[in-house]
Amino acid sequence: MFMNSRALRIEWGDCDPAGIVFYPRYFAMFDTSTTALFERALGATKVQFLKTYDFAGYPMVDTRARFVSPTRFGDDVVIETKVTELKRSSFSVQHLLTKGDTLAVEAFETRVWVGRDPCDPGKMKSQPIPQDVIARLNGAE
Amino acid sequence: MFMNSRALRIEWGDCDPAGIVFYPRYFAMFDTSTTALFERALGATKVQFLKTYDFAGYPMVDTRARFVSPTRFGDDVVIETKVTELKRSSFSVQHLLTKGDTLAVEAFETRVWVGRDPCDPGKMKSQPIPQDVIARLNGAE
Amino acid sequence: MFMNSRALRIEWGDCDPAGIVFYPRYFAMFDTSTTALFERALGATKVQFLKTYDFAGYPMVDTRARFVSPTRFGDDVVIETKVTELKRSSFSVQHLLTKGDTLAVEAFETRVWVGRDPCDPGKMKSQPIPQDVIARLNGAE
Amino acid sequence: MFMNSRALRIEWGDCDPAGIVFYPRYFAMFDTSTTALFERALGATKVQFLKTYDFAGYPMVDTRARFVSPTRFGDDVVIETKVTELKRSSFSVQHLLTKGDTLAVEAFETRVWVGRDPCDPGKMKSQPIPQDVIARLNGAE
Repeated sequence: MFMNSRALRIEWGDCDPAGIVFYPRYFAMFDTSTTALFERALGATKVQFLKTYDFAGYPMVDTRARFVSPTRFGDDVVIETKVTELKRSSFSVQHLLTKGDTLAVEAFETRVWVGRDPCDPGKMKSQPIPQDVIARLNGAE
Repeated sequence: MFMNSRALRIEWGDCDPAGIVFYPRYFAMFDTSTTALFERALGATKVQFLKTYDFAGYPMVDTRARFVSPTRFGDDVVIETKVTELKRSSFSVQHLLTKGDTLAVEAFETRVWVGRDPCDPGKMKSQPIPQDVIARLNGAE
Repeated sequence: MFMNSRALRIEWGDCDPAGIVFYPRYFAMFDTSTTALFERALGATKVQFLKTYDFAGYPMVDTRARFVSPTRFGDDVVIETKVTELKRSSFSVQHLLTKGDTLAVEAFETRVWVGRDPCDPGKMKSQPIPQDVIARLNGAE
Repeated sequence: MFMNSRALRIEWGDCDPAGIVFYPRYFAMFDTSTTALFERALGATKVQFLKTYDFAGYPMVDTRARFVSPTRFGDDVVIETKVTELKRSSFSVQHLLTKGDTLAVEAFETRVWVGRDPCDPGKMKSQPIPQDVIARLNGAE
């Protein structure tokens, strides 16, 4: 299935008084990585593909992360992201954050494809992932 | 004019590797303080008063902060917030963040009252602050 | 075992363009809740008990969260936090974030008690949780 | 004097319920830009040059930002950063954040060069900026 990789530098403001990444910041990095994967698979920015496929986003349902070794400001890391499961209206993603050859964080996430609830625009409701999106995430581009 | 004060504790995740608050976090605290002031003046949460007055928010136009002395995780601080100027469609606010008797940060901000642009709902446009809001911020409640 | 509960309001800056909490922010709230639990159990702020027990912190090893229902800015929520397991140098915590009677987020975390590595002060190394801390977290205060 | 420019994409998690950048996030971007400028001028990462010059950082003393036009997730922006003043133990920096040809944010900052206070390692104290650093920031590399 579709994979994407991106490099980033750990910044001073990502780190806590122990000098290592404040772990909630990793989840923000992973959210960006999931979007980067979609942007590459769909060939459009998130602001564009939200319109193209007329949906409201892919909020998180369940996420887990294992922190294997710490990273510090100035560290250049790579996040490899891949779709691991595609269901009717949800999908799962795995992230591996590495520093050189060392695995620092492994994360898993399941998200749901949602639209605005037609009965209440303030609410969101799951809806089927479009076939075109599934085909592209399957790598059958 | 209307004033509000709120107490908060500086958290581990607010701080950087030097052990002091990462200064962008202060601006998030001040944004919450401005909203707390409005919530108290208008007697409603932001989600409610956005609907009542049918507007899109009060984005920042200009802000400045002076960092006089550092604060650290575990510090109990107080933020005093007051409206310093009310114009037709903009207003200014001052925040004083103190730890005990010591001033830690002084901040100023000017925000504009905006609605959705009727010609383009994706854009925002300044609009007059409602008289009722002005009266309440003037303390003539 | 020891439990703690704290109330907080979801803020505008915690939320994303969908109007709901940007999920990494929940982890920052949970980190504060774990520290609040320790502060109450040990009767000291984190900055104080880091000194008292001469350790460097309790970095996250493994965390998982299930997002059951969304929360929005202006929502008043409660986070109930309890220690679920105490081992020699690690411990597990559960957080339940509720809005009224509704569960919004359930999270689990395992953290390790660390000190500075005597051979390399830049590194951290797990060490036994002090008996006094274990007794207090066991509620045998 | 020394200038640096870096490109970045505005992310979903940088934005608030109005769909535009939550302004405290801009300050985090500017902090990274100031560090990027130092890293380029000094040819080392922050973690390295903190050691080389044996100091504790350059905390913010005074910062101001004017928000001229909003940016949204998916926007590709550029931040141009330059040193505008170099004093004995403090320096000033200007940031211009642009989207295409449009200025979005203009920011100013004054920071102080600090070391650990020899009388109290928990405190920081301003100290002269090393001549080598001044020479490099002056572009006399």
